[in-house]
Amino acid sequence: MGRKVLLDVDTGNDDAILLAMMLAAEDVDVVGVTTVSGNSTLNNTTQNTLSVLELFDRTDVPVAKGAERPLVREPCGAEWVHGENGIRGDLPASTTSPVDQTAMEFICDQVNSHGKHLTIAAVGPLTNIALAIANRPTLPDEIDELYLMGGSAHTHGNTTPVAEFNFWEDPEAASRVMQDGFPRMVGLDVTNQATVLPEFVDKIEDASPPLTTVSQWFDYPDELMKMEYGAKVPAIHDGVVGADIIGNILDYESYYLEVDTTDGPSRGAVICDVLGIMDTEMNVISEDRNRLSPTGNVAENIDIDRFREIISETILYYN
Amino acid sequence: MGRKVLLDVDTGNDDAILLAMMLAAEDVDVVGVTTVSGNSTLNNTTQNTLSVLELFDRTDVPVAKGAERPLVREPCGAEWVHGENGIRGDLPASTTSPVDQTAMEFICDQVNSHGKHLTIAAVGPLTNIALAIANRPTLPDEIDELYLMGGSAHTHGNTTPVAEFNFWEDPEAASRVMQDGFPRMVGLDVTNQATVLPEFVDKIEDASPPLTTVSQWFDYPDELMKMEYGAKVPAIHDGVVGADIIGNILDYESYYLEVDTTDGPSRGAVICDVLGIMDTEMNVISEDRNRLSPTGNVAENIDIDRFREIISETILYYN
Amino acid sequence: MGRKVLLDVDTGNDDAILLAMMLAAEDVDVVGVTTVSGNSTLNNTTQNTLSVLELFDRTDVPVAKGAERPLVREPCGAEWVHGENGIRGDLPASTTSPVDQTAMEFICDQVNSHGKHLTIAAVGPLTNIALAIANRPTLPDEIDELYLMGGSAHTHGNTTPVAEFNFWEDPEAASRVMQDGFPRMVGLDVTNQATVLPEFVDKIEDASPPLTTVSQWFDYPDELMKMEYGAKVPAIHDGVVGADIIGNILDYESYYLEVDTTDGPSRGAVICDVLGIMDTEMNVISEDRNRLSPTGNVAENIDIDRFREIISETILYYN
Amino acid sequence: MGRKVLLDVDTGNDDAILLAMMLAAEDVDVVGVTTVSGNSTLNNTTQNTLSVLELFDRTDVPVAKGAERPLVREPCGAEWVHGENGIRGDLPASTTSPVDQTAMEFICDQVNSHGKHLTIAAVGPLTNIALAIANRPTLPDEIDELYLMGGSAHTHGNTTPVAEFNFWEDPEAASRVMQDGFPRMVGLDVTNQATVLPEFVDKIEDASPPLTTVSQWFDYPDELMKMEYGAKVPAIHDGVVGADIIGNILDYESYYLEVDTTDGPSRGAVICDVLGIMDTEMNVISEDRNRLSPTGNVAENIDIDRFREIISETILYYN
Ligand SMILES: [Ca+2]
Ligand SMILES: [Ca+2]
Ligand SMILES: [Ca+2]
Ligand SMILES: [Ca+2]
Repeated sequence: MGRKVLLDVDTGNDDAILLAMMLAAEDVDVVGVTTVSGNSTLNNTTQNTLSVLELFDRTDVPVAKGAERPLVREPCGAEWVHGENGIRGDLPASTTSPVDQTAMEFICDQVNSHGKHLTIAAVGPLTNIALAIANRPTLPDEIDELYLMGGSAHTHGNTTPVAEFNFWEDPEAASRVMQDGFPRMVGLDVTNQATVLPEFVDKIEDASPPLTTVSQWFDYPDELMKMEYGAKVPAIHDGVVGADIIGNILDYESYYLEVDTTDGPSRGAVICDVLGIMDTEMNVISEDRNRLSPTGNVAENIDIDRFREIISETILYYN
Repeated sequence: MGRKVLLDVDTGNDDAILLAMMLAAEDVDVVGVTTVSGNSTLNNTTQNTLSVLELFDRTDVPVAKGAERPLVREPCGAEWVHGENGIRGDLPASTTSPVDQTAMEFICDQVNSHGKHLTIAAVGPLTNIALAIANRPTLPDEIDELYLMGGSAHTHGNTTPVAEFNFWEDPEAASRVMQDGFPRMVGLDVTNQATVLPEFVDKIEDASPPLTTVSQWFDYPDELMKMEYGAKVPAIHDGVVGADIIGNILDYESYYLEVDTTDGPSRGAVICDVLGIMDTEMNVISEDRNRLSPTGNVAENIDIDRFREIISETILYYN
Repeated sequence: MGRKVLLDVDTGNDDAILLAMMLAAEDVDVVGVTTVSGNSTLNNTTQNTLSVLELFDRTDVPVAKGAERPLVREPCGAEWVHGENGIRGDLPASTTSPVDQTAMEFICDQVNSHGKHLTIAAVGPLTNIALAIANRPTLPDEIDELYLMGGSAHTHGNTTPVAEFNFWEDPEAASRVMQDGFPRMVGLDVTNQATVLPEFVDKIEDASPPLTTVSQWFDYPDELMKMEYGAKVPAIHDGVVGADIIGNILDYESYYLEVDTTDGPSRGAVICDVLGIMDTEMNVISEDRNRLSPTGNVAENIDIDRFREIISETILYYN
Repeated sequence: MGRKVLLDVDTGNDDAILLAMMLAAEDVDVVGVTTVSGNSTLNNTTQNTLSVLELFDRTDVPVAKGAERPLVREPCGAEWVHGENGIRGDLPASTTSPVDQTAMEFICDQVNSHGKHLTIAAVGPLTNIALAIANRPTLPDEIDELYLMGGSAHTHGNTTPVAEFNFWEDPEAASRVMQDGFPRMVGLDVTNQATVLPEFVDKIEDASPPLTTVSQWFDYPDELMKMEYGAKVPAIHDGVVGADIIGNILDYESYYLEVDTTDGPSRGAVICDVLGIMDTEMNVISEDRNRLSPTGNVAENIDIDRFREIISETILYYN
C-alpha cells in the first residue's frame, strides 16, 4: 500500500504516460481517475483513459467522467498536438465503463474515504477541481496535497505567448483553484525542461507490447517539438507531476498568484508576484505596502536526471 | 399537490416575501430551499431561511446550504439594503438545521425525484445553479422551467449603472446559466415596476403575527426607494418570480443573451441582442449574417394589478 | 454671418446630408471640415467630403484630413451600410485638395481663430477630437459647444447589441472625449427616431440636380432599415446634430458617463449613471455615497416634426 | 556635429542621468527635449527638465511641454520612487520657459528638420510619441530610430507583477507605438541589470558641483533597491537607452509584440511572441499557422561593463 493518489486527466499522450508511471510506481496507490474535457472532448478523453487502463490490465481502477466544458467559456481542444482522438498509438477497446458518479462527486467521495492520505494530481484543465472546491470549500484542507500541471510563472506560454494550455482552456477554474486550493503548481517553468532522450524512446519502440503503444505517446509533431525545444525531443509535461510524487524531483517557492480571466491577450496567464509588489490596497508599489499572502507553491527547479530515471524505471516495468 | 418548486435564495427581505408567497400558494409544493451567498453571507442567508420557515411553522421544508462565495471572484454583499443580518424583522431562532447535502447535491437529487415536474426558481446570485448545471449538463432539459430573478435587458442596473445585483455578484455563474440553462430571466425590466402600495404595507403592519414581521420585509431604506422608484414604495423583485409561477403575470420574448464577465465598467451587464445583430462569425452587423440562436426568455411586460393581487392573496393567508 | 461651426465627419451618407444641411443653413458659417476614418477609409471619407463640397459648389470650405485609424485598435468600416466607397450617389470628381494641415492641427487653429464663437460637431469616430483634446487640454473650455453623434445611453446599440458604430469604432477616443470634453452626446436614444418620411425622399428624387444625388443618400439598405426601425424609412443620425444646432430640437440631461474600452462584449457601450449609483470610492451603491459629477449632456427627447421641417427647409434650398 | 537626438522624458532621476549623459556625449546633438506626465505631474517633470538644463548650463536646448495625462486613463505617478517633485537633489531654479509648441508639435517639426538623421529616445510613458504617430502616421518611416525605455518581455514587472512603470502608466499609448512605431524596446529585461557600483556613486558624491547634485539622482530608496536587485545598488533604467545610442551596448531580437490594455491584472504587460505561436487567424497554435510579423526589436543582452564605462565617461565630463 502506498500513497493514495487520485488523477484528474484529459488523456492525452502525456496524461497516458503519467497513468503508466503512476500505475507502475511501487509506493503509489491510484484510487481512481477522473476525466475532463481538454486535449480533446470529454468523450474522447474518457474513452482514452479507459483504453489506457485496459492496455495495462488495470480495469480495476475506477474512472469517473467529469466536465464536458470549461466553467464559463467554450472549449477549444488540442487534437493537432495529441492526435485525432486526443491520443496516438493503437489502444485496445475498453471493456469497462465509467462509474455512476460525476468526477466531482467521485472526488468528494475519495476525500471522505482517504482524507489526509489523499493526493490529488490534476493534469488537465482545472474544471473538475474548481467544481469540487466550489461544492466543498474545505477540500484543500482535508487532503494531503493538490498538484497541478499547468501555467507558467516565469517563462512564456505554449498556447498563447503568455498562457499554458490547461490554464488557457479554463482560466476561471484555474483562478478559483489558485485562490482556494494552495496548489503545487507544476508549470512550463519546469516541464519545458522535462524532455526524454531519443535513446529511451527508441528503446521502448523496439520492446514488446504494451511498450510499442507507449512509445507512440512520446511521438509529438516534429514542428511542435522543434518550435518549443529547438530539437526533436518531447517534453512530458504531465509526467513531471508523477515523477515529483514518486521521487521529489522539484523545488518549490511560494508566491501570491493570480490567473488572468479577461478577454484580452493575457487570458490564462499566471500573475506571479515575485517581488512582493502587490498590496492589499492597490496594484501599485508603495513603501508601506501590506504584501499579499502566498496562494500557492510554484515548481522552480527540476532534477532532470532523476526525472528521466523515474520515467525509465516506471515505464520499463511494463517490459 | 401542486407544481413542484425548488427555491434557490439568498434571504434577504424579498426572498423572504417570495418564501411566504410560495408556501401559501395553493397550487405550489415547495420541495426544498437552497441557499447561497449574496445579500449577506451564506451563514446569514441560511439562518434567515431557516428562521422564515420557523416563523411560518414550515420546518418540514428541507433547506440545503450552498455556495459560500461566487464562482470566480470574491463576494460583496448588500447588507445595507437588507439589514445587518441580510434581513429585517424579528425572526424566531431556528430549531432545525440544513440537510446533510450541499445545495448542488440537493438540486440534483430533486431533479432525480421530480424531473419534468420540477420548477427551479433562483432569486439570488446564480452560483448554485451554475454548479448544478456544470455537474449535470442535462439538468435544463430534465426539468420543467428554470426561473431566475436577475439582470436587466432593456433598462439600467441597480448595483452599477448597467448591472443588477444578482448578476453583478456572480457574473460568471450568470453567464454559464445563460449559455446552458435557457432560463426565464425576470429582471429589472419588470421587477422595477413590481411595487406594492403603501396601503397594503400599512394593512399587514397592523395585523397580528406573523404578519407584523412580514411587514418589516417591505421596509426598504427610504433613500434607496426614492432613488430607484421616485417614491417611498418598495419593488419586491424576487416576488415577481413567485407571482408568475402562481399566476402567469409576465410576457416573455426570447433573445440571444450574454453576460459581461470582464473586469470593466460593464461587469455583470446583460448583452441582449434585440435587433439580431450578432453573427456567428463576428460581433459586427452584416447583410448575410447568420443570427445567433436565442438563449433565454426575457420578461418584458408585467400585469401589475395581478401582481399586487397575488401578493395580497398569498401574504394575507397568514392573517 | 452666423454661428461658426467646424464639422468632423466620416462621410458617409448621413454625414453628407449633415454637410448639405449646414451649408444651406442661414445662421451657420461652416469654417471647415475635418475628416476621419470610420464609415470607410480616410481616403474615401476625405474624397467623399471634397466631392460633396464640389457638388454644392462650396469648394471654398477648407477640408483637413485627419486620423486614418482609431487611437488604439484597428479600424473596421461600414461600407455595407454606406456603399462601396462609403457613400452612395453620383458625385462629381473633386477639383480641390485638403489643406496642408492635419485635422487636429486645423481644429487647434480654428480654436485660436474663433474661440468661444466656435461650435465643433463631430459625427464620426472621435479620433480627431480626442487627439485635439490630448494636444490641447484647454480646448473644451475655449469653445462654445462640442456636439457629437454617437453612443447610446438608454437604448440598444446598432453595431453590437450594446454599442453604437462611432463609439464602437474608437471607444478609447470616445472615452477620452467623455472624460475631458463635456460633450452634447446625440446618440441613438434620439437619432433612431430621426426618420424622414418616404414622401420627402420621393420629392427630392424627382427634383433636379444636385437633389437627385442627395436623394440617394437617404437610400439605406432595406434590410437594415427594417431591422432597426421596422419600416423602410431611414434614420438620419448625423443630421440630428445639425438640426439641433440650427433649431434646438433636442432636450438634454446631464449624467456621469463612461465608455467601455474592454475587449469584452460591451466594448464601445456607454455607461450612463442614471440613478447616481456610482461613488468616488467604488462601483457599488452605498447610503453615504459621494456621487460622481456629470461628465456630459445626453440628448433625451427630440422634436421630430421640427427635425423634418429643418431637413426639408435646408435640403430644399438646393432646389 | 553628431547624431541628432530628441529626448522625450518624465524627469525623474534616471531621466536626469540620461540628460546628463546625452548632453555630455561627444557624438550626440540633443536637438530638444519633450516632457510628459509620468514619474510626477507634467508641471513637475517639465520644471525638473528645465532645471537640469540650467544645472548643466545648457538652456540653449529647447524644451517642449507635452501630455499632462495618459491617452485614455487617469495618471498615477511615482513620486515615492523619485522624490516629492519627481526628482531628488538640489536643483537651480530655471530661468527659461518651454517653447510655444506642444511636445507633439515640436516632435513633428524636428522630423521635418532632421528626417532620417533624427533619433527619438522616449523614456517616460509613451503618450507624446503615440500622439505624434497618430497625427503623423509616416513618422516612424521618416526618422532614423525610435528608442523607448519601457516594458518587460521576458521578465517580471516593477509596478505590477507583470507590468513595467512606463507601459503601465499609459498602456494604450504603448500599444499604439508597438503597432506602428517598430521601436527598439529597452525594457527591464536589460535595464534591471544596469546597476552602477557604489564606488562610482561615492566618487561623484565627493566631487564638486554639479556632480554633488547628480550623485543624488543615484540615491533610490533602499527598500526599492533591495526588493528589486537584492542589494543597495540602483539600476539606471533610462540611462541604458543613452548608453546604447552612444556605444551600442545592447543586442536585440525582433518579435511580434502587443501591450495588454485590459482592466485586468495584466494591464500594461508586454505580450512577446517568442515561439511564433500567434496566428493571423486566431490566438491558438496550429500546424499551418501564418505567423504574425515582428513589430519591434527587444533588447535582450547588455554589455554591463561598457554600460558602466559610458556612464562614467559622460558623467565625469562635468567634473
Ligand atoms: Ca493533460
Ligand atoms: Ca434575492
Ligand atoms: Ca458619420
Ligand atoms: Ca523616465
